[in-house]
Amino acid sequence: MTAGNSGDGAGRNNIDLGPGTEFDLVRTLLAEWGKAAQRIGDDAAVLDVPKGERLLVSTDTSVEGVHFQRDWLSSFEIGYRATAASLSDLAAMAARPLGILIALTLPKEDLDEAREFATGIREGASAVMCPIVGGDLSSGRDLSLTITALGSSARPLTRSGAKTGQRVYVTGRLGGPASAIRAWRAGKDPRESDRARFANPVPRIEPAIGLAQRGATSGIDISDGLIADLGHVAAASKVSIEIDADRIPRVEGVSPTQAASSGEEYEIVVTAPEIDTRQFSEEFGLELTEVGRVVAGRPGVTLLQAGKPISAQPGFDHFRDK
Amino acid sequence: MTAGNSGDGAGRNNIDLGPGTEFDLVRTLLAEWGKAAQRIGDDAAVLDVPKGERLLVSTDTSVEGVHFQRDWLSSFEIGYRATAASLSDLAAMAARPLGILIALTLPKEDLDEAREFATGIREGASAVMCPIVGGDLSSGRDLSLTITALGSSARPLTRSGAKTGQRVYVTGRLGGPASAIRAWRAGKDPRESDRARFANPVPRIEPAIGLAQRGATSGIDISDGLIADLGHVAAASKVSIEIDADRIPRVEGVSPTQAASSGEEYEIVVTAPEIDTRQFSEEFGLELTEVGRVVAGRPGVTLLQAGKPISAQPGFDHFRDK
Repeated sequence: MTAGNSGDGAGRNNIDLGPGTEFDLVRTLLAEWGKAAQRIGDDAAVLDVPKGERLLVSTDTSVEGVHFQRDWLSSFEIGYRATAASLSDLAAMAARPLGILIALTLPKEDLDEAREFATGIREGASAVMCPIVGGDLSSGRDLSLTITALGSSARPLTRSGAKTGQRVYVTGRLGGPASAIRAWRAGKDPRESDRARFANPVPRIEPAIGLAQRGATSGIDISDGLIADLGHVAAASKVSIEIDADRIPRVEGVSPTQAASSGEEYEIVVTAPEIDTRQFSEEFGLELTEVGRVVAGRPGVTLLQAGKPISAQPGFDHFRDK
Repeated sequence: MTAGNSGDGAGRNNIDLGPGTEFDLVRTLLAEWGKAAQRIGDDAAVLDVPKGERLLVSTDTSVEGVHFQRDWLSSFEIGYRATAASLSDLAAMAARPLGILIALTLPKEDLDEAREFATGIREGASAVMCPIVGGDLSSGRDLSLTITALGSSARPLTRSGAKTGQRVYVTGRLGGPASAIRAWRAGKDPRESDRARFANPVPRIEPAIGLAQRGATSGIDISDGLIADLGHVAAASKVSIEIDADRIPRVEGVSPTQAASSGEEYEIVVTAPEIDTRQFSEEFGLELTEVGRVVAGRPGVTLLQAGKPISAQPGFDHFRDK
């Protein structure tokens, strides 16, 4: 579709599109998006970053057969989940969304599903009040969505911000998505609550901003698994991180090591000075749990049970596991 | 890979990455990119928009078998061309690049080609002095690149800016890419000059900024074909555009109507008051040709020969033509 505005920044209406089949499809998407889509139609979208804030931008691809199976999710859920996963990268850095761009590659046989994808994308973006500002449409053999998320923050969290002496906090409860995937792979229906954690993640935008305001200096969203993602923080910050397996908040029926390696969670893990977790949970309606600490030592993550190191499966690797 | 910085904006070095096959591949790409890659490693890249300028952002997908055939282009050229095509969207609006993000979906059998793709991407970005600030890696059946380009401008050109009474100017000479594609489809080798126009387009960043400085108010890059793309301008601006077929600058052996419908050109067409084309061409080392005018009337584009309307093939449509 390619994205844009009407040039003066005042008008928020989308401009007229030219003729052609591809543009008919764009019109279908725009009709479904309604006011969620803004300034679509130029070669590029025009946006403004709030004064005193920096621009954050991230791009995230979801491919059929790699990131999801068509028979696991509805078309609505595929659109929703890809959008939420991309916006979660902004949450990881405690940024507020400015807009998303949707590059949608659609097999011809899925043309009829375009409206459902669009609705899912709209709902995923609306959940964190993010407008859709542009995109691109292609045909292709695999259904694929590449979503670029733009946000802003005066003081973004980074992977390199962890400091010795800090504590490690994680939002929500882990293990649901891994349980759902295990069930699907075994040919069973997952529990509804696990399925929802996989299909309908909520980017933790406001909680992450709340954590930054409480002094968090490093953050990451859990996409590969708690231990694997903290490994990136440890490497970037050149610190050692200890996690107490039994303190990892987890959904029913999931072991501590399963929770430690469950990916696609889109919960947030940060390092911070001591935080009042009860007050935080009440303010955001979301559990916050202290699960470990940052210590001096060789960069890496150690999972401890009763004070002794145990091993956890690392997270998912597209090129190794597929 | 996911992208980012080291948090304070001062350090331009990329931060350490964690373990895993996917990250080994990221390391390969980063080694190839060298200083062209900046601030890779966090969940999102952190950038600053120059004071007084607005942010422009566009996303563009190139899929094997749809936008290019593997046997037409080398891996280097695939990377280069996808990057140039994406940056051309910034040229269309007379914006200067801030950075690009690369979402690369790679079939497993192409893992060995990753270095060549990376080199092409680096050269495409370096041609307009644009850093690579982030991305995402996936496996998949089709090779696919979605490149998001970020830029800034104090006064972007738009599709809706054309005004009655303006003249229409186009950069370069048209028809080369269409000639190359015709040759490949007929099982022949294209002329080297036509092939280069397809494989190695140069985003017209500086010329477009020069056109904006000379009073251009609307612009678009020629990706679907001169007439098709001007159709978007006419629709968005609610004006009628007349193009004189015989004035369209074209490469040798191409008819006016072929030049009028040749896509993938990545030349720029603008509407503007009268411009000294000779002075412009000398300054930018690039031809600029007046090809028509903006007139009152029903929104649309008319191609004229000897003052009489003729028809031109419309441009390429992914969902109709494949």
